[in-house]
Amino acid sequence: MSTSEKQLTEEQAREVQRQLDFYVQGVREIIPTEELENKLVKSIVEGKPLKIKLGLDPSAPDVHLGHTVVLNKIRQFQENGHTIQLIIGDFTGKIGDPTGKSVARTQLTDEEVRQNAKTYFEQFGKVIDMEKVELHYNSKWLSPLQFEEVINLAGKVTVARLLERDDFEERMAFRKPISLHEFFYPVMQGYDSVILESDIELGGTDQHFNVLMGRHFQERFKKEPQVAMLMPLLEGIDGVEKMSKSKKNYIGIDESPNEMYGKAMSIPDELLIKYFELITNLSPTEVETIKNKVQSGELHPRDAKMLLGKTIVEMYHGREAAEQAEQHFVSVFQQGKTPEVIQEYEWEGNPEVSVIDLLVQLDLLKSKSEARRMIENRGVKVDGNRIEDTGVVITLSNGLIVQVGKRKFAKIKL
Amino acid sequence: MSTSEKQLTEEQAREVQRQLDFYVQGVREIIPTEELENKLVKSIVEGKPLKIKLGLDPSAPDVHLGHTVVLNKIRQFQENGHTIQLIIGDFTGKIGDPTGKSVARTQLTDEEVRQNAKTYFEQFGKVIDMEKVELHYNSKWLSPLQFEEVINLAGKVTVARLLERDDFEERMAFRKPISLHEFFYPVMQGYDSVILESDIELGGTDQHFNVLMGRHFQERFKKEPQVAMLMPLLEGIDGVEKMSKSKKNYIGIDESPNEMYGKAMSIPDELLIKYFELITNLSPTEVETIKNKVQSGELHPRDAKMLLGKTIVEMYHGREAAEQAEQHFVSVFQQGKTPEVIQEYEWEGNPEVSVIDLLVQLDLLKSKSEARRMIENRGVKVDGNRIEDTGVVITLSNGLIVQVGKRKFAKIKL
Repeated sequence: MSTSEKQLTEEQAREVQRQLDFYVQGVREIIPTEELENKLVKSIVEGKPLKIKLGLDPSAPDVHLGHTVVLNKIRQFQENGHTIQLIIGDFTGKIGDPTGKSVARTQLTDEEVRQNAKTYFEQFGKVIDMEKVELHYNSKWLSPLQFEEVINLAGKVTVARLLERDDFEERMAFRKPISLHEFFYPVMQGYDSVILESDIELGGTDQHFNVLMGRHFQERFKKEPQVAMLMPLLEGIDGVEKMSKSKKNYIGIDESPNEMYGKAMSIPDELLIKYFELITNLSPTEVETIKNKVQSGELHPRDAKMLLGKTIVEMYHGREAAEQAEQHFVSVFQQGKTPEVIQEYEWEGNPEVSVIDLLVQLDLLKSKSEARRMIENRGVKVDGNRIEDTGVVITLSNGLIVQVGKRKFAKIKL
Repeated sequence: MSTSEKQLTEEQAREVQRQLDFYVQGVREIIPTEELENKLVKSIVEGKPLKIKLGLDPSAPDVHLGHTVVLNKIRQFQENGHTIQLIIGDFTGKIGDPTGKSVARTQLTDEEVRQNAKTYFEQFGKVIDMEKVELHYNSKWLSPLQFEEVINLAGKVTVARLLERDDFEERMAFRKPISLHEFFYPVMQGYDSVILESDIELGGTDQHFNVLMGRHFQERFKKEPQVAMLMPLLEGIDGVEKMSKSKKNYIGIDESPNEMYGKAMSIPDELLIKYFELITNLSPTEVETIKNKVQSGELHPRDAKMLLGKTIVEMYHGREAAEQAEQHFVSVFQQGKTPEVIQEYEWEGNPEVSVIDLLVQLDLLKSKSEARRMIENRGVKVDGNRIEDTGVVITLSNGLIVQVGKRKFAKIKL
């Protein structure tokens, strides 16, 4: 849009750059980057907000900080006055899985869809301003489509293109069945962008294919194609797998200040900056500063993690709760109670050990049954994380702290 | 259906066998054969006619004897009291090709569909009793389908299964695009059988995949699956390619008795029995007798062909016309007028020659304009076939006979 660029005042040019600096932070992929800038220039020159699309699966409304990676990006656009289009994929949810094979795709009633949407919104409200959000249910435009229109839609994409989607490609290669209707999920998602004339669609990198379908269909329907902004998937606090409810490596958006803070403290050092970038509301400059200080040794990773914990708790529970959570952590783990008085155990056996055996061998508890009871009474923590399952196997690492009740500690030396 | 079989009287068993003998004649494939017999047994025991489905493409209503291969089979079922379901695929015709790429799949108006259907019926009436036919337009049940129902339909077939269709497989292999909507043509054809609860679907061998889709979808909709009966594709009178209008190797269902007879005489000997089997109304026993006589030398192939010509003309123009056509042929080609008196020309030039040049070079006519006029007045025949186009290029072969008017002949010697 060279014409638009020419019209830019110096102030406008600075504003474009200021917004861009925010938007590109932490993003894995922008397709294509130059179009993002062009759209932004046009928006600022014409004073017209961009339409930022985010699609939601109505079947899994539990929100954890992994989801806020995208929400935080949404918030940045919102704070700059752009329009957020939240789309509840209720049509997909309502049709379920006609093959009856997928457990995940069970058919949802209207009531369930509404209920799940409500759960989303309550939780989203902690990150973005739900008052200013455009809300859409895609059944509104998908449900009335008749066969002829479906054919018309299907005529705008090739089978080969659809088979490029990683999971389809893999299933074809391994001769696992793909039902024809499954091809329609990306098609629908793409068509949503046509109807809503979205400028930008956000998603995790796992949505790469589906988000590009929006671009594809907009082009085929002679609309200006949207820009795809793909956010990295956030590893859970274990530092290994993608954050997810089922892996129990998540920080829930509804968790108490102390739990949030404690979990933030337990992430591996390597994830520190990524967490700052992706799930806090710090500016790119602030994050850069923290990063530099940690790298130079000026800031101890533990102290950086404390800042992370405090920032996150403040985002979801306010400043006061954040300070209390910090004090709680300090009183339990830092004010001498943990590092100074605790006994060190030189561990010589297998570093993979069941939590029950660990407690007994460390002499923290006298018997396996006592150990089991204590876990059931929620009295055992490992590195600050409460153990909730008596069957857990712990992988010991140097410096790992095991805590029973309020006062008994042991530190592992490998 | 062992229970049904037990109930069969001796007379019924004979009737089953009598009908079967007709039905299997000339068929390339029955899938599966035992189900055809079971359905027949049940129909005869319960006195309930079978539903025999034939789908028609509304975009190409010109009927030639190639089409009557299937129609003759339909007629056999009709003569035994079964119900014929003719389906005009008007939904497909009306939606056209959404990619806009296919010339063949141009969108038809309602009026064109009706007009083409009318053309079909007028011509079909020469083979089957159109009064007793059930007529269906598939837009009736396809057009009102909504997206949700389309998804439900699409959920009952896999992508891999659809890609097994020869032309899809080939296009995938050669990386030629297949639009997603194309997958719906076999799906629709299959769904037609679900709606009509067809017992048997007839088609050419090129319909193998599509007809089996009917079986597939009936099973998925918990209906009794239809039997597929696939007829061979009839070679044209050139003996090489499938009979088709565009190859000019066809005998049209509307052609004059003399043209039909003459064209029947021109088929290669190898096709003789196939033509008898597939496009005449002779019984399996009669065809068998002819076959044996030709093989033993008792019947000269030329005489067998004359019988073929006479039979075909009788089917479409009645007995009298058939006898006249035979006499005409005999008087022109056999009673000495052709073979004895005609001049032989030793041809030394290019054997590919325009008919105009040929007529002038053979000295049959004096100038190109005279030649053109004679063709326009329908006065020129090559090997008994009237030349209707002044632009035709003839491929000369040894013994080829060129005729102008009633008396002028020339025979080519290469």
